[in-house]
Amino acid sequence: MGFVHEAYDVIVIGAGHAGCEAALAAARMGAKTAIFTMNLDSIANMPCNPSIGGTAKGHLVREIDALGGEMGKCADKTLIQSRILNRAKGPAVYSLRAQIDRRSYQREMKHTLECQENLHLCQAEVVDIVIRNNKVEGVITHIGSFFPAKAVVLTTGTYLKGKIIIGDVSYESGPDGLLPSNRLSESLKKYGIQLRRFKTGTPPRINRRSIDFSKMIVQPGDDPIVPFSFETQKIEREQVPCYLIYSTEETHRIVRENLHRSPLYSGKIEGIGPRYCPSFEDKIVKFADKERHQIFVEPMGLDTEEIYLQGFSTSMPEDVQHAMVRSLPGLENAQIMRYAYAIEYDCIDPTCLKLSLEFKDIEGLFSAGQINGSSGYEEAAAQGIIAGINAALKVQGKEPLILDRSQAYIGVLIDDLVTKGTNEPYRMMTSRAEYRLHLRQDNADARLTPIGYKLGLISEERYQRFLEKQKAIEDEIERLKRKIVPPSDEVNEFLDKYNSSRIKSGVKLYDLLKRPEITYDILKEIDRDMPDLPKPVTEEVAIRIKYEGYIAKQMQQIEQFKKMEERLLPEDINYEEIHGLRLEARQKLSKYRPRSLGQASRISGVSPADISVLVIYLNARKGRSDNEG
Amino acid sequence: MGFVHEAYDVIVIGAGHAGCEAALAAARMGAKTAIFTMNLDSIANMPCNPSIGGTAKGHLVREIDALGGEMGKCADKTLIQSRILNRAKGPAVYSLRAQIDRRSYQREMKHTLECQENLHLCQAEVVDIVIRNNKVEGVITHIGSFFPAKAVVLTTGTYLKGKIIIGDVSYESGPDGLLPSNRLSESLKKYGIQLRRFKTGTPPRINRRSIDFSKMIVQPGDDPIVPFSFETQKIEREQVPCYLIYSTEETHRIVRENLHRSPLYSGKIEGIGPRYCPSFEDKIVKFADKERHQIFVEPMGLDTEEIYLQGFSTSMPEDVQHAMVRSLPGLENAQIMRYAYAIEYDCIDPTCLKLSLEFKDIEGLFSAGQINGSSGYEEAAAQGIIAGINAALKVQGKEPLILDRSQAYIGVLIDDLVTKGTNEPYRMMTSRAEYRLHLRQDNADARLTPIGYKLGLISEERYQRFLEKQKAIEDEIERLKRKIVPPSDEVNEFLDKYNSSRIKSGVKLYDLLKRPEITYDILKEIDRDMPDLPKPVTEEVAIRIKYEGYIAKQMQQIEQFKKMEERLLPEDINYEEIHGLRLEARQKLSKYRPRSLGQASRISGVSPADISVLVIYLNARKGRSDNEG
Repeated sequence: MGFVHEAYDVIVIGAGHAGCEAALAAARMGAKTAIFTMNLDSIANMPCNPSIGGTAKGHLVREIDALGGEMGKCADKTLIQSRILNRAKGPAVYSLRAQIDRRSYQREMKHTLECQENLHLCQAEVVDIVIRNNKVEGVITHIGSFFPAKAVVLTTGTYLKGKIIIGDVSYESGPDGLLPSNRLSESLKKYGIQLRRFKTGTPPRINRRSIDFSKMIVQPGDDPIVPFSFETQKIEREQVPCYLIYSTEETHRIVRENLHRSPLYSGKIEGIGPRYCPSFEDKIVKFADKERHQIFVEPMGLDTEEIYLQGFSTSMPEDVQHAMVRSLPGLENAQIMRYAYAIEYDCIDPTCLKLSLEFKDIEGLFSAGQINGSSGYEEAAAQGIIAGINAALKVQGKEPLILDRSQAYIGVLIDDLVTKGTNEPYRMMTSRAEYRLHLRQDNADARLTPIGYKLGLISEERYQRFLEKQKAIEDEIERLKRKIVPPSDEVNEFLDKYNSSRIKSGVKLYDLLKRPEITYDILKEIDRDMPDLPKPVTEEVAIRIKYEGYIAKQMQQIEQFKKMEERLLPEDINYEEIHGLRLEARQKLSKYRPRSLGQASRISGVSPADISVLVIYLNARKGRSDNEG
Repeated sequence: MGFVHEAYDVIVIGAGHAGCEAALAAARMGAKTAIFTMNLDSIANMPCNPSIGGTAKGHLVREIDALGGEMGKCADKTLIQSRILNRAKGPAVYSLRAQIDRRSYQREMKHTLECQENLHLCQAEVVDIVIRNNKVEGVITHIGSFFPAKAVVLTTGTYLKGKIIIGDVSYESGPDGLLPSNRLSESLKKYGIQLRRFKTGTPPRINRRSIDFSKMIVQPGDDPIVPFSFETQKIEREQVPCYLIYSTEETHRIVRENLHRSPLYSGKIEGIGPRYCPSFEDKIVKFADKERHQIFVEPMGLDTEEIYLQGFSTSMPEDVQHAMVRSLPGLENAQIMRYAYAIEYDCIDPTCLKLSLEFKDIEGLFSAGQINGSSGYEEAAAQGIIAGINAALKVQGKEPLILDRSQAYIGVLIDDLVTKGTNEPYRMMTSRAEYRLHLRQDNADARLTPIGYKLGLISEERYQRFLEKQKAIEDEIERLKRKIVPPSDEVNEFLDKYNSSRIKSGVKLYDLLKRPEITYDILKEIDRDMPDLPKPVTEEVAIRIKYEGYIAKQMQQIEQFKKMEERLLPEDINYEEIHGLRLEARQKLSKYRPRSLGQASRISGVSPADISVLVIYLNARKGRSDNEG
């Protein structure tokens, strides 16, 4: 062994979206932390979409922010266009999505790491993890130096044995022309960690100067910009447009005629790709009847001419890519700056992790992001902050933070990965959340900021502002409940104006607001006492009143769920000796060792009948121990 | 062979400082140009010093700018501190030096390439050059695609078979954590190009927050800032300070005690390093009697905490580096963000090139920058612009541009490399220029802008401004020659004030200005008619008047030199049959095939006596052909 460096509490391997959040969280909680990256200039890189947020992903960013994470703030500082998606679909699925200046985001996040107390940012490749008696002891870098650590967080993204595939050519490489990490995989295997191959892909980048935008549909940003972070007061910035185009008959013909040359279909790619972010050739095959597909034409930043073709990911050979791109409207003379590629990488089976993201069999080793089988920057960051928090809590000898499915999309994400596992790169979607009327992006602070505060990730000042906001919401709801408007001419004319039925007796403003056609803002016309409240407050007030019934029902469901989750399964439980469990359930339960009855119920292969057997068993065991105690 | 792309006139391999200038020059001259880089995010990277300019190097930047190159403009836009070095040593060696925001410089240069008409910027690794009948036909990328081209410029920097060495550890890598280029070397060897190993090194980077600046000497920038580019009117910008420290007894002790662990002395490094930019351990060995060495502590940019230790380059093992750094004043608690390393790379012997930077034996193949055995960003850029110009001229069927030693430092640089060759990374120095009183940074435009204009690299507008400036200089010199001041009390009191001897009869302002103690600016006190001229004009006026005698003498020497340079050696000359040439001279002349008598005279091993023999031979041959003709 070479040079032995000073000891750290927490070491994070990799400075992508997961690594950055993990390191910042651990350091902010007081753990002496080091973060290693193979290239200091590639911190928080976006090798794919230059954007953050989107359906369900926007929720994750809000939740990360509510806990005290960095992604939302960094996005707010560097976004060049912002939109709220699903405006028509109701507040449960409103999702913020921002186009980001990719290089500025990297610079901003790197500087945040550099300035973080307790955090040492260092360029080095970790090639080996030192584990003794199933307990992590530190890491060894490419130079042979040893950094002792009490906890280690793996956030290796797509770098482990990274292999790029374009047509029939493949070569070892990390994403975006960077070095792969080849040696760490062997270290993980040495400790019995099983590795799998997943793949992802990215579309070509085009020089803006070669594009004819007159053939495209302009997609402007929203005005005003709604920030990701609950801490960002206002974003005043000129936004750049994105553009929408559709693939043509010619595009589809080119793809169909060259399918045999796609590494996806020739067998050249062994890794499994993301179902919900398929390559363009995948779309042509799987949706053969669709005549066209949307492609968004998006800038990669303010001071670059690079343009991203969202929805046009491919691993076709260069000549086919060239023809495909030039078959698109406005791209007839497109100059490709970076060709599209697929990338395969090693990742783990996340069912070998606890809900804390610690390895079940290796104390102090945590794992977050794409190495856990997820896809997406936001999914990575969400796991990153939890792994960082739990690494710090571990070092402090405290219980881990586990968010459940009723608390956060983060909880759904981690529970899905760890409990159910995944056979393909896992992407967050609103449909995966059972309690999505409660898990809204607008109330992420109400759900999580008290937790972030308790952990030390939320400052006292921010917490006080948060409490004030919550109080303002409650006060305003109360006021609306109290204030009754009379059936005056003025009021009825107001109701006429908005196609709402007239009233004959006094009605609470609260009840008027429940009407779908009446928004909070227009109430002002008949409510002279309406206080001047910030948008996030009035939005929350309106949602809570309008959807009160649904929300109440959901809270009941959550009660039920909580009961199941609170029934913990003892660590020493022996499923082999529980009579009545089906064989498959017995095997799965033994393998995954769920933490609670709720978690057990979500393991595929464990039926409701099996859960009933478990309940009976637990009750009997409880009775026994009550008697014994 | 894979996909055949559209054909280009000029292809540039590599987008470092040489490649960027080469590609821009070729494209601006109307050649259809492509530039390939392995990583679009690393264009114009500064893997070593985050600075541009310095002694002799500042001259090169000025000359590049005067020809219509980009380095000076890009530096002006992104500098964070500027100084003129050698202020005390006279205007011949004044040198501009600027601290640069490394990431902004890259962004700026990348954007310039992206926006350049006729230029296609593309991420790809060139792995093979196609040469048939000793003529270049194009390049093949890592994907197997063929890009036909009439001319190809190699600007591979330190990437070819890049190998990083730290202590007893070494591994394949490009600089700064980037991928090396391993396959192109084999291609070059295949065509008989002999490769050598050179090495260079870089110091550690430190997190600013761990530095105690109170123990350091502040080095502020100059006010006002003098721009590099003749096109930049004014730079108004807040500057950041650099700091000066000295190595300690402890530092030297650590190095001496660990010398056996240095790869330089253990034999681990085979490449030859730069004499004038030695590693710190080299300094300790070679200047054993020196008690301390200067180290400059410099910021890497405005939005990063990374700090560069100029003068502290090393390839010692990590533990030794750690101890060395912490033995420096103010760095007792330094946190290292990037460890220092040495890097070895393949380069060519530049004597196989013509003065045009085209390979003597391969038509259309050019080479510039570190691959030619030079060191330094400025040296690379200087060769780059010449190679780019000559590649474009070649395609246009025109004669190459060759700057001689009397025209430019660029001429000295290329002549030194191509004629004398180099056994170590070549660095520009003012002492290498015979005519340095003429080759000043202030008159680089007078020397080179007409050439840039003729090539199409200088716009009509800029050229007119240039002509106006030259006219203003001439006019003002004439005016000062004409205007006579009387021996009045006012004038004599003025002379007293500046410790200059009184005059008894009328004297020309011109003659007063020749006095060392009288500067142009103070003349204003007795010269009511002095026009309000820009600083570059008055500076030039003063230099030309003050140094008139020296300059005139130098111009005579240049005349002599030109005569030698104009005596071209016929391409078909057979040195074997010239009687009287010494054997060594015969061999060297046959090998290097100099273009002119002047060039022949600078080949080591060719004596003045050999030159006399050649003159006689040329005269006789001329007589013969005159008679025949």
